[in-house]
Amino acid sequence: MPTYENAKMIIDALERLEIESENVGRRPDKRSGRKGRSLPALEAIRNCKGKVGVVDTTFSNIDTASIAIKEIKRLANKVTIRRYTVPGLRDVPVACKLLIERERCGIVLATGMVSRKGVEKQVENEAMQGIISVQLLTNRHVITAFFDESEAKDKAKLYNIVVDRVRKHAQNALKLLALPESLTDYAGLGLRQGQRDVGRLRM
Amino acid sequence: MPTYENAKMIIDALERLEIESENVGRRPDKRSGRKGRSLPALEAIRNCKGKVGVVDTTFSNIDTASIAIKEIKRLANKVTIRRYTVPGLRDVPVACKLLIERERCGIVLATGMVSRKGVEKQVENEAMQGIISVQLLTNRHVITAFFDESEAKDKAKLYNIVVDRVRKHAQNALKLLALPESLTDYAGLGLRQGQRDVGRLRM
Amino acid sequence: MPTYENAKMIIDALERLEIESENVGRRPDKRSGRKGRSLPALEAIRNCKGKVGVVDTTFSNIDTASIAIKEIKRLANKVTIRRYTVPGLRDVPVACKLLIERERCGIVLATGMVSRKGVEKQVENEAMQGIISVQLLTNRHVITAFFDESEAKDKAKLYNIVVDRVRKHAQNALKLLALPESLTDYAGLGLRQGQRDVGRLRM
Amino acid sequence: MPTYENAKMIIDALERLEIESENVGRRPDKRSGRKGRSLPALEAIRNCKGKVGVVDTTFSNIDTASIAIKEIKRLANKVTIRRYTVPGLRDVPVACKLLIERERCGIVLATGMVSRKGVEKQVENEAMQGIISVQLLTNRHVITAFFDESEAKDKAKLYNIVVDRVRKHAQNALKLLALPESLTDYAGLGLRQGQRDVGRLRM
Amino acid sequence: MPTYENAKMIIDALERLEIESENVGRRPDKRSGRKGRSLPALEAIRNCKGKVGVVDTTFSNIDTASIAIKEIKRLANKVTIRRYTVPGLRDVPVACKLLIERERCGIVLATGMVSRKGVEKQVENEAMQGIISVQLLTNRHVITAFFDESEAKDKAKLYNIVVDRVRKHAQNALKLLALPESLTDYAGLGLRQGQRDVGRLRM
Repeated sequence: MPTYENAKMIIDALERLEIESENVGRRPDKRSGRKGRSLPALEAIRNCKGKVGVVDTTFSNIDTASIAIKEIKRLANKVTIRRYTVPGLRDVPVACKLLIERERCGIVLATGMVSRKGVEKQVENEAMQGIISVQLLTNRHVITAFFDESEAKDKAKLYNIVVDRVRKHAQNALKLLALPESLTDYAGLGLRQGQRDVGRLRM
Repeated sequence: MPTYENAKMIIDALERLEIESENVGRRPDKRSGRKGRSLPALEAIRNCKGKVGVVDTTFSNIDTASIAIKEIKRLANKVTIRRYTVPGLRDVPVACKLLIERERCGIVLATGMVSRKGVEKQVENEAMQGIISVQLLTNRHVITAFFDESEAKDKAKLYNIVVDRVRKHAQNALKLLALPESLTDYAGLGLRQGQRDVGRLRM
Repeated sequence: MPTYENAKMIIDALERLEIESENVGRRPDKRSGRKGRSLPALEAIRNCKGKVGVVDTTFSNIDTASIAIKEIKRLANKVTIRRYTVPGLRDVPVACKLLIERERCGIVLATGMVSRKGVEKQVENEAMQGIISVQLLTNRHVITAFFDESEAKDKAKLYNIVVDRVRKHAQNALKLLALPESLTDYAGLGLRQGQRDVGRLRM
Repeated sequence: MPTYENAKMIIDALERLEIESENVGRRPDKRSGRKGRSLPALEAIRNCKGKVGVVDTTFSNIDTASIAIKEIKRLANKVTIRRYTVPGLRDVPVACKLLIERERCGIVLATGMVSRKGVEKQVENEAMQGIISVQLLTNRHVITAFFDESEAKDKAKLYNIVVDRVRKHAQNALKLLALPESLTDYAGLGLRQGQRDVGRLRM
Repeated sequence: MPTYENAKMIIDALERLEIESENVGRRPDKRSGRKGRSLPALEAIRNCKGKVGVVDTTFSNIDTASIAIKEIKRLANKVTIRRYTVPGLRDVPVACKLLIERERCGIVLATGMVSRKGVEKQVENEAMQGIISVQLLTNRHVITAFFDESEAKDKAKLYNIVVDRVRKHAQNALKLLALPESLTDYAGLGLRQGQRDVGRLRM
């Protein structure tokens, strides 16, 4: 059926253009000449009916979960979202586990803030080790999008870093949920969340 | 029944006023214009018949558990409280686990003191990793309210920090026990325990 | 029976006097005016027929287990003691687990020495994390009484620190074994092992 | 059958020459006078029908998995390769576990990049602890070939380090998969991945 | 039977003299006046039919496993030895677990080298935490004899340190395997592996 196929191609092309600026469907490697790789991932995300957990904290001074939820809804309006807010980073691991085991989330995006004081590096470490344990106990990914107040002195810059990181990691979570193998198209490309990608080192 | 409803509204309003100064029912976000969000949490806490564990230590030079128990009783006179005192921070994790597994506590508030000497940072880290493991093994929250002698040189100031932190975390524990989703009203608000909240960063 | 009761009261009083100097039956809080709190714990310890494990190392240059065993026998002549000597701190965790699982010890007192070299801090950390895991796997307390050569330059002073710490932690272990709730009488009193108690901070 | 045997010996000898320059079949110890030790390992690798998992990240700025896969295919064209790309190092442990448990990989080669910023040392530590847990939970080896941007200032040099490390660790993985005891021939030889071997210290 | 008993006593006495210089049968405490304590351990080791695992690495520049195996054979010619060589320290934990679970080793001696670069401290820590986990998962001891290039600048001295440490820990492993309680004779004696014992601190 040419009509349907044409329409789909056009829609896909348009969508790709729009989406590319947001990283989801970015062509992974311009020099490789491969094209259209992004479409299967995009479509899989669009059709995905899985459940995504989003964890955030009352400690954070940015509403990270809302940023994440907005991005998830923009790309994947068939997924179900479960949000869980806890006091601080140390409460995040068990919240992730509860979202996976009780709410049956297929993947969790854990967001949170690491404060400027020295001890918070330790807190992040404790939370991360707990989150890795959660993943090993449940065989599910928990993607972390933490930020540190000291990443930027300027508040507006900090906010933009957080938005960029949370959105890109929301995209990562959707890719892993909808089409796990799709991240291989972006392998070794020096992708960064919260800053510009560094690109691939070639010899 | 208007009488009952009116009475309840008035009581709620009064209670909210009183409680707001203590953070439990604080309106989460003044600029959002949302009102009365605190009432469901307050009422859920007031009606909650769960069991709360409180762990403290003989090492601490402040009687943190008594502060916690007083706050819990003030807000939730139907909950049962189980207290467990151990020598020091390193004995806290298994005490939390015993309160959850043997005493069937739905949540535990772990309090304790980190002393000024360098090695105590390490002790706190060991205790926290154990506490995170307890949470993952039991699927229950353990809220920690630790303090460090070095947080304030002035003893009165230190005492006030501890009271503020223990009370606010007792409130967090009650919210998570009675109405877990209620913390979302406070998400990303930069809440602090033991110091003033920092507020939300907006753009 | 007045005779028996009187005799018991007198014996208890005498014992309390004697014991108080050794911390076990110390009145927890002189200003509180509570009296005789120590007796139930003392009696429970005296009548306890449980099994206590004591772990020590060949690395240590003080015979910590003998100090511990002497103290346990002084206070609790009905308990059974199982001693397990291992090469160093890193061998301690599994020794504790074996004493609990194979020898059915109700509690374990782990003693050992942390040497002066920088890396030994790391060794202590590894041992402590293992010991916390043992506790979580067995639901039993393992009380640690480690010492560090650098705590005192003077050898006699170091020895006294170790004796004080090991004895007090042996007492803690007996209390937790015989009457777990008894430590609440000492909560928040700033108790120290190996040095003078710091007392409670009051406001 | 002399023909077959002779042919096999010649092929093996030629292959050994070729392979020796690539480390796989390197004679472990020239001074020991032992010969031909490499052949069983080489042949076992060549005939191995096992499954090898390769994990890499989008964070890395070098396509490490492609280097690994090329090396595996060069030496072991009967093995099946499963590749899994995740965002960053912290997502690697569960990916390894999924490759072992869902894809039934007999061994996994985990590759990834540790960036120059201070915090990345911590990230590597978190990932490594998770990877060690994966190994203990699955009784399978996960060989890690991570690199750090700061290992060489010159990009070409860094690239060569990474190629050398990934290839040698791919060889290690194949040896452990095909003939686990074969690494004993290389024991205590000061082998390095990403730099020149240091050799054995003899007395 | 006097003949047998006499012969045995003489052999034991001679053996003790010879062995004492090698630490295994060393009288634990000269001042205590206890005699002959070493014989039961020696005999138990000599008659032990258990299985000892030895783990080493290709990273190390000293052939530690050969030193260990030679010492084990010297003292315990009835034990079975299983050797497992892995690339580096991070591969050691699962190798220990496989030796215990698949090869049914009653104890494992894990040897390896920690290199001079700063990051290797972290690697040792990761390996040790894994090894402690192995012990807790299997209820078996894993005795570690690691060395660090920076322990001695002189290569001959470093080699001697390693030989001393590996042999003494091989002896520790044999004692724990053949007669676990025998280490109590050496408790608190300040024993060192790789350097001179420091002796007991007495008051």
